[in-house]
Formats: sequence, structure tokens, C-alpha cells
Amino acid sequence: MESEFLRWLDRHLPEHPRFLLGPGDDAAVLRWSGEDCVVTSDMLHDGTDFVSGQSDWRLVGRKALAVNLSDLAAMAARPVAAVVSLLLPRQGGLQIAKSLYEGLLALADQFDLPIAGGDTNSWDGPVVISVTAIGKTTEHGFWRRRGAVAGDQILVTGSFGGSILGRQFEFTPRVHEALELATRYRIHAATDVSDGLSLDLAHVCQASGCGAELHLDQIPISADAHRLAALPTTPQQAALDHALGDGEDFELILAVPAEQAKRLLDDQPLEVALTYIGHFIDQPGLWAVDRSGQRRPLIPRGYRH
Amino acid sequence: MESEFLRWLDRHLPEHPRFLLGPGDDAAVLRWSGEDCVVTSDMLHDGTDFVSGQSDWRLVGRKALAVNLSDLAAMAARPVAAVVSLLLPRQGGLQIAKSLYEGLLALADQFDLPIAGGDTNSWDGPVVISVTAIGKTTEHGFWRRRGAVAGDQILVTGSFGGSILGRQFEFTPRVHEALELATRYRIHAATDVSDGLSLDLAHVCQASGCGAELHLDQIPISADAHRLAALPTTPQQAALDHALGDGEDFELILAVPAEQAKRLLDDQPLEVALTYIGHFIDQPGLWAVDRSGQRRPLIPRGYRH
Repeated sequence: MESEFLRWLDRHLPEHPRFLLGPGDDAAVLRWSGEDCVVTSDMLHDGTDFVSGQSDWRLVGRKALAVNLSDLAAMAARPVAAVVSLLLPRQGGLQIAKSLYEGLLALADQFDLPIAGGDTNSWDGPVVISVTAIGKTTEHGFWRRRGAVAGDQILVTGSFGGSILGRQFEFTPRVHEALELATRYRIHAATDVSDGLSLDLAHVCQASGCGAELHLDQIPISADAHRLAALPTTPQQAALDHALGDGEDFELILAVPAEQAKRLLDDQPLEVALTYIGHFIDQPGLWAVDRSGQRRPLIPRGYRH
Repeated sequence: MESEFLRWLDRHLPEHPRFLLGPGDDAAVLRWSGEDCVVTSDMLHDGTDFVSGQSDWRLVGRKALAVNLSDLAAMAARPVAAVVSLLLPRQGGLQIAKSLYEGLLALADQFDLPIAGGDTNSWDGPVVISVTAIGKTTEHGFWRRRGAVAGDQILVTGSFGGSILGRQFEFTPRVHEALELATRYRIHAATDVSDGLSLDLAHVCQASGCGAELHLDQIPISADAHRLAALPTTPQQAALDHALGDGEDFELILAVPAEQAKRLLDDQPLEVALTYIGHFIDQPGLWAVDRSGQRRPLIPRGYRH
């Protein structure tokens, strides 16, 4: 339903001269006098993004803000403020609201981010939390998914897979990392990994009109992905597959011109590791390359809306 | 629950130097280079703001945007963009989403407002629609609830009461009117009437540290309020009481210095009528004044969060 609706929306949302970048990327960018305005919104709800009775409300509140900050990071935007709207059960809603805000405010404090209000209501339905984050572009411009060209290297922050073991709630949005990179390096395109490394990379390829070759043995696989692969669960999945498709890693995928990529990998300017995992090519599609140089089509996996 | 939570939030949301105006008014104002950024958010949900199966989805979508535009109007801000997040039922969600957007986009078009994305998800719960609107301040500054002083006249746009007969969905947010007024007149304080004329006026009094005397015979009562009062419903309520307490009129309440008010009432510069209904006084509280000049306490009525 969602992807069908998004296609419908794509045809029905008019262009507007106020857009430097319209909907469809990690955030939209609005023309402003002074720095331009970057805006993104995510709505989390019980049953999918968290499970009432199982999830720690503080972590849910934290996550609701963190996913939006991750979207701003994917644009290399500086966070300015967020608004928060809640739907809460009539019974016990006050305690839930306080816990949600405790987690959310602790993260906001880390990023010096003011909460500029919102809306709070009680109802008989499940918990819903909607956050809109507002950011500013810097003098270095902003990143988009479109812009990768053949020959660009694919660099990623951090490691992938197994976020369900906890990192889906406790990840660090790569805001500082993105601003540091945008200041010192030329990045052609970027996104954050919410749906899945391979699927989000496919989105960059699609937006940029190119394809990508991935060196599977170079993918930084998280310890969580290995742990998850070792669990006696059904279906069994290799750690690499978790890394390629689990999603909610909220790391950055970057399309970096080759000479910049070399400098970046030499510098390793961030607290988190930057890893080369492949490069963009003219030919559409994703391709997996093994150590012997053999390649085969790679079907992008992840959370499909 | 909500008012208790809002008090808790008031103590826990930190001040921030980026706020020209923090949460608690009709919108927040963020310092920006160039025009400042005004942001407001409202979340509508099934069962309170509309009723699935009874409400026209196009009108629901329209309203979700319109209430936010009304908040921007109450700040005399120029609308810039909105983001829209939806939670939809898995069955029939696509058609609902399209209808919501049809109504919303028609209103957005009237106000030349681009929709800068959002988030759409399906679930097993009722329909939720959350809209965040972003505006800009103009060179004439912005209005807040605080700022009314004793002697200021209370002027309102339009008429009040009976919005439940349809105006709650089909009202015109007073964006153009507010910008026109802000350009040509000095307004001390303002709000829009969502909760109820008397209750929203009480909010202005509270924020401004003053009270108000209302001339009940001057209150512009809508034809809908008269119609509603004439219906054989229980409880019976006079048209005036509907005007004072129904809410969702989305008209403006303005605190206007006396000499400006005279000019405004003479000019009648708007398409909608501007009416004098009373004045602010030093003494706290709301007071009803009848034709003979007798006054009695007026208990503010309306939707209490």
C-alpha cells in the first residue's frame, strides 16, 4: 500500500519554487534567506517500531528523535529544533509520556536541540509518536541521494546487521560525523541506512541513475549480526545477510570521488570507522563481487514500504 | 492527563537560546539568519477530531492542514511549507490516503503551500494524521498570546459557535487576514479560537497577566450557533453559550491598543468582519458586562486538554 501510495503522491505533489529539494529524499530543503531550512518527519507506532509492554519507553522516545536526526545527518544538515506529537492511552498515558520524553530529552540535550512544542492527546488506541526535525544547511551545501557517478567509491560509517538486538534503539545519529565530513571532504551523494544497507544503496543508485559493485568481503559486519547469525532461530541467516538486509543501522552510505575517498580512508577523521565497500558503476543494478573478482547480481533486501 | 502532562513538560523542556519564543503559544519561533522560523504541529485522530465512516476524508485532510495554518495566522507568520504523516488501516488505506490528500492539497494550493514530505505507514489501528507547518516571520514581527495590556480592546474576526455543523472542517484559516493586519496595524497579542472563544480569551489573559470584560451583546454569534440552539437536542444551550464555548471557530482574537482599534473598526480592512467584544483590564479573570453595565464573573468554557 505504502509504495503504491508514494507513487501516487509523487505524481500529485506539485513542484514548488520554494523547494531546493522536494520530498522523496531523506529530508526536504526549503529556500530561505540565510541558511536554507531542512525538514524531515517520522511517525513511530506500537506494533511495528516498538511493542507496548516489551519496549522501554525511554528508548522509544529516544528513537523517535534519533531517526529524524539521522535523516538530517544524511543531508549534512545542522539540527535546529524538533516538534513532538504524542497519542497516548487514557490509562497510564502520563507515565508513558514522561518516560518517552525522558529518553527523547536526554538525546536532544546531547545534540543541543530544543524541543519546540507539539501536540499531546489521549485516546483508546495504541501509542503513536511523531517527530518533525528542522535543520539548517551549512555553507558546504547539502547532500542528497542523487549525485553518485560511476567511479565514486562507496564508503560507510560503522558496521551493519543485527540492530534488532538493541542498536535499533540505541544508535548514535551521525550528525557530528556528517558535518565533519561535509566541512572537509567533497561527497557526491549520501543516505542513512534505515531500510537495509543493500536496499538503501539501491535507492542511491536509483536516484543517481547508476549501479554499484559491492565487495562482500569488505562489508563491516557488526558483532550483533554475528550473534544473531549464531542464535538457533528460524530462519537461519548468515551474518553477512543480516548486514545487507536488516536495516535500522542508521549509519551513513557515502558516494565519494576516488581521490577524496583515498584521503578520507587515510585520514579516518571520525571516531567511527569509515570503510570502503565498493564503487558505483554506469550499469544499473547491484552486483556482488567476490575475492576472485567474479560478480553476480545482488538483490537488494530490507524493509520495503 | 494532558493538562497535567503539559505542566510537567513546562518544567522539563529546557529554555534554549535558539528560541525567540518557546513552546506554549500557538507556535514556536526559532531564531534564524534572515526571517525567523515559526513552527507548529497538530495531530488529528479518529474518534475525536473526526469519525471514520461519518467524516468525509477530504475534509479531514483539509482540516489537518487548516488547523496548523490557523496557528501560523495567530502568530502573523507567513506559511512556508508543511509535512504530513499518516497512519492508515491496512484495508482501504490507499483510498483514504488519496482522499485525505485531495482535501489537503486543495487547501495547500489556495495558500501556495508546498508539502515537503512526511511519513506514511499502515497499521491495525485507527487513522491518524499529523501535520507540522513551517512559517516565516515578516518584518512586522510576530504575535504572541502575551502582550495584552489593560485598556486594549478585544477584537475578533468572524463569528462564533456551532462549528460542529460543518465549519469545524470548512473554516478558512485567517492567514491572509493576519498578514494584512500585521502590516498595517499594531496588535499587542493574538490567538486563534480552537478550544472556545471564552477559554482562548482566558489563555490570552493568563499569558498577559490581565483580565477582560466582555460585552456579551456584542459577541458575533454565527448562524450555526442559532441553528444549533434551535435544534431539539439535549442539553439545550443558548446560541450565545455556543458562541462562547463551542470552539473550533478558528477565528482570531486580537488585543488592540484603543486608538488602533478605532482605526481598524472604521477601516474594516478585511473581507471578514472585525468586531469589538470588550476590553482587557488589570484585574484577573473574565467578566461579562450586560447592557446596563452590570458585570458578573464569566467562567471560561471550551475544550479542556
